[in-house]
Amino acid sequence: MSQPAPESATPPAASDAPRPSGVRAAVRAVPAYPYTPTDVPVKLDQNENPYDFPAELKAEALRRMAARPWNRYPDLHADHLRAAIARFEDWPEAGVVVTPGSNVLIKLLTELGGIGQTVLTTDPTFGVYTLEASLLDARLVQLPLNGDFSLPVAALKEALARETPGVFAIAQPHAPSGHVDAEQAVRDLVETAEAHGWVTVLDEAYHQYSGTDYRDLVRAHPNTLSLRTFSKAWGLAGLRLGYMLAGAELAEQQQKLVPAFNVNVLTQAALEVALEHPGYVQERVQEGVRERERVLAALEGHPTLRALPSRSNHFLIQTPDPQAAYRHLLSRGISVRAQGNTHLLRGCLRIGIGTPAENDALIETLNALG
Amino acid sequence: MSQPAPESATPPAASDAPRPSGVRAAVRAVPAYPYTPTDVPVKLDQNENPYDFPAELKAEALRRMAARPWNRYPDLHADHLRAAIARFEDWPEAGVVVTPGSNVLIKLLTELGGIGQTVLTTDPTFGVYTLEASLLDARLVQLPLNGDFSLPVAALKEALARETPGVFAIAQPHAPSGHVDAEQAVRDLVETAEAHGWVTVLDEAYHQYSGTDYRDLVRAHPNTLSLRTFSKAWGLAGLRLGYMLAGAELAEQQQKLVPAFNVNVLTQAALEVALEHPGYVQERVQEGVRERERVLAALEGHPTLRALPSRSNHFLIQTPDPQAAYRHLLSRGISVRAQGNTHLLRGCLRIGIGTPAENDALIETLNALG
Repeated sequence: MSQPAPESATPPAASDAPRPSGVRAAVRAVPAYPYTPTDVPVKLDQNENPYDFPAELKAEALRRMAARPWNRYPDLHADHLRAAIARFEDWPEAGVVVTPGSNVLIKLLTELGGIGQTVLTTDPTFGVYTLEASLLDARLVQLPLNGDFSLPVAALKEALARETPGVFAIAQPHAPSGHVDAEQAVRDLVETAEAHGWVTVLDEAYHQYSGTDYRDLVRAHPNTLSLRTFSKAWGLAGLRLGYMLAGAELAEQQQKLVPAFNVNVLTQAALEVALEHPGYVQERVQEGVRERERVLAALEGHPTLRALPSRSNHFLIQTPDPQAAYRHLLSRGISVRAQGNTHLLRGCLRIGIGTPAENDALIETLNALG
Repeated sequence: MSQPAPESATPPAASDAPRPSGVRAAVRAVPAYPYTPTDVPVKLDQNENPYDFPAELKAEALRRMAARPWNRYPDLHADHLRAAIARFEDWPEAGVVVTPGSNVLIKLLTELGGIGQTVLTTDPTFGVYTLEASLLDARLVQLPLNGDFSLPVAALKEALARETPGVFAIAQPHAPSGHVDAEQAVRDLVETAEAHGWVTVLDEAYHQYSGTDYRDLVRAHPNTLSLRTFSKAWGLAGLRLGYMLAGAELAEQQQKLVPAFNVNVLTQAALEVALEHPGYVQERVQEGVRERERVLAALEGHPTLRALPSRSNHFLIQTPDPQAAYRHLLSRGISVRAQGNTHLLRGCLRIGIGTPAENDALIETLNALG
């Protein structure tokens, strides 16, 4: 006489058993990237340049793309483009490394000196530094910025002396605050980091807006590099090109980690045109700086929110209810970037500088927030 | 009375002392990528499609690029392009991951399951697997292929059971030989790998030329993926786009490692056009296969060199003096790819299939080698 076994005795189906997985625990532990796109008329959430590439330059770039073969691999290290950047930056070509976006370089720098070693940065910092450190099993050490977003120089110097070296990353201007430190503070940190063997990243993604430039400091320090991008002042975020300026030896090590042929022929053609006609950048940066100052001045004395000073193409506002402010802006067709709810970013939203008309809409909408 | 200190007592200058460096030892130990470009009329050294993107499709792609803003970031994960690939491959969109070239995916797969774990592959294999394993501190285990370039199934199964799981990578057709294995051998290995928790990469970069397709096997195995590219049959190596097809869960883990916004707007526009007009690919693959068979037949009975059978868009020749053959071809304006001097590749050169006229030149030049 047979009868069905009681349910509790049923062996678990194969699909219920935990499946073994070669996927590393560090990857499984990291949540997916949090960006949610919004389709609105006034897009101030990604610190983009509000203007497209000038029409006549776009036409010239498209002509060059048409003339090149698309079936052939690009050159291995984008030598022609690297040479054009080297000329523009007055930098040795052997010290220029390019990737499709500077976020790729941050990953590769974490591969260079972070895996099994240390990534030392500030809190807050640009999120890709902490994300890649988590994904790639680097020991992540973050020191809180001072209340005005300035660098905690003494604490950082202690950490540089104390921790096993790896990658040390600071930004000038800082993101997301737009704060700029005294040059002596940055110099002091770079000298300490060099003495202890760190690879030091000076992230200068927004340096055109602050008028700061650490090339001389990088030139004098072989383990220090400047990270730059075509996504902000150049207004070419859609083309994906970031680069680093470093000494030839550090660049050679970093280049080994760059996947072969990594900059496509279309982006190369367009950036060569941009670098031959860089004049448009200065005009746009000047307008961006003027508009930033106008927006910050217009928000002074606001009854509930506080706009923090910035020398970048974006700024933070601090408000008692950031989610309400975010929704209010979005309901008027303006997207901005929510921030984490920790430390100095508590209550903050990050807002990019747009065109004058977009900034008018922003000011009006924020003032209506009351 | 002062006098100069004897030379031997002079303390070493600062520049002579070994400088501490946060650069990881594994990176310092790897030599730079060995590819040297050649500028010749007949380029058979990178397994490219010999034909450019059809002119009318190129014009349409350029129109779309012109209409899109270049100052805005692309969408985070190239969703529109991923959806188009999903439709073309009859695959769930959540299981498609795209990067600028499939070599980037190999790096990211090494990040996914290789760092501090194991990369198991064959010898010979596509060089990026071994390069990334070395750079990223994965334990690299390579098992020699059989003499006819077929998979050593029993030895691989033993290794899959013995080693700590990580990434297991095989190619169908194999590169650089173009060998294709029996489907049962591949299925057997995938099942063993899944049972032991490996992430299995079926590299199908050249599958159009062999007429093989492992989508059904991948569909049935959640830790297994197919790696594909637009650089070969699609003839778009200059645009840089590789992709993987996997289950949604594995794809989600891999996607975390992909840098945000990593496919630029220009490449996205061009590939959308290609995917709307895939007909040109089949014609070119058919010609490539016909030409491969014609070239291999024409080299049969050669007095000194042996052309190895292949089902890909390239093949190996084995010759007593590969350097002399390489120089002879180059002197006639034909570039091919030198191979390492180990194991099955001893005496080998890798040669891509070109246009019929290019293949005529190749046959004539090799036959003149005597």
